[in-house]
Amino acid sequence: MIRNINTERMEPIEMDGCEGASMAVMVGRRDGAPHFAVRSIEVQPGGHTPRHRHDYEHEVFVVSGSGMVLLGDRVEPIKAGDVIYVEANLEHQFRSTDESLRFLCMVPVEQNCGGGTPGS
Amino acid sequence: MIRNINTERMEPIEMDGCEGASMAVMVGRRDGAPHFAVRSIEVQPGGHTPRHRHDYEHEVFVVSGSGMVLLGDRVEPIKAGDVIYVEANLEHQFRSTDESLRFLCMVPVEQNCGGGTPGS
Repeated sequence: MIRNINTERMEPIEMDGCEGASMAVMVGRRDGAPHFAVRSIEVQPGGHTPRHRHDYEHEVFVVSGSGMVLLGDRVEPIKAGDVIYVEANLEHQFRSTDESLRFLCMVPVEQNCGGGTPGS
Repeated sequence: MIRNINTERMEPIEMDGCEGASMAVMVGRRDGAPHFAVRSIEVQPGGHTPRHRHDYEHEVFVVSGSGMVLLGDRVEPIKAGDVIYVEANLEHQFRSTDESLRFLCMVPVEQNCGGGTPGS
């Protein structure tokens, strides 16, 4: 199975606190992936993902653009080629700057306390 | 935790059947990642990863360059932006063409039949 992030249909992320972000699940439960999912996310200039926390981790790869990531009480710049580990239960948010920020966000398909991970 | 694939130290992959490939574990067990690891892999022009199979899946993202992937009895071209799902127990191999092929290869930290996944 091969899919390309540049041609996969992106859907707006409809969550409170999210602005100008869209997502496509590139590999996930629909493919029978047993452990983790790869999602492609784009944040329009000036947009951001929700500021939140949850009981499962993110492993993120920045494909293009630049932005900022909130990790607990720190805000760090991010750029293409960065790999970011967001441990479970850490508050986090991804923000673009004046250009679109594109990244992959990998999640386990099951939450640590049970049940499918949203968007996996 | 933020690391960049362009500055992380790559180590040659010392496996039978592997030619001109190197790897850096970007996020993995050393970081406490509970479910899966992200590895950065580079295959020099004309090189390839081992042709093999194992009891755990790969989820791959092509960062740059181009090449071919063997998936069972098929050989497919791959390019930047491609996400490839290699299911468990499927024979596979990644080959570069006349330019270096760079990709991320995500694996679960535990093999399906138990024990840590090599290189996670």
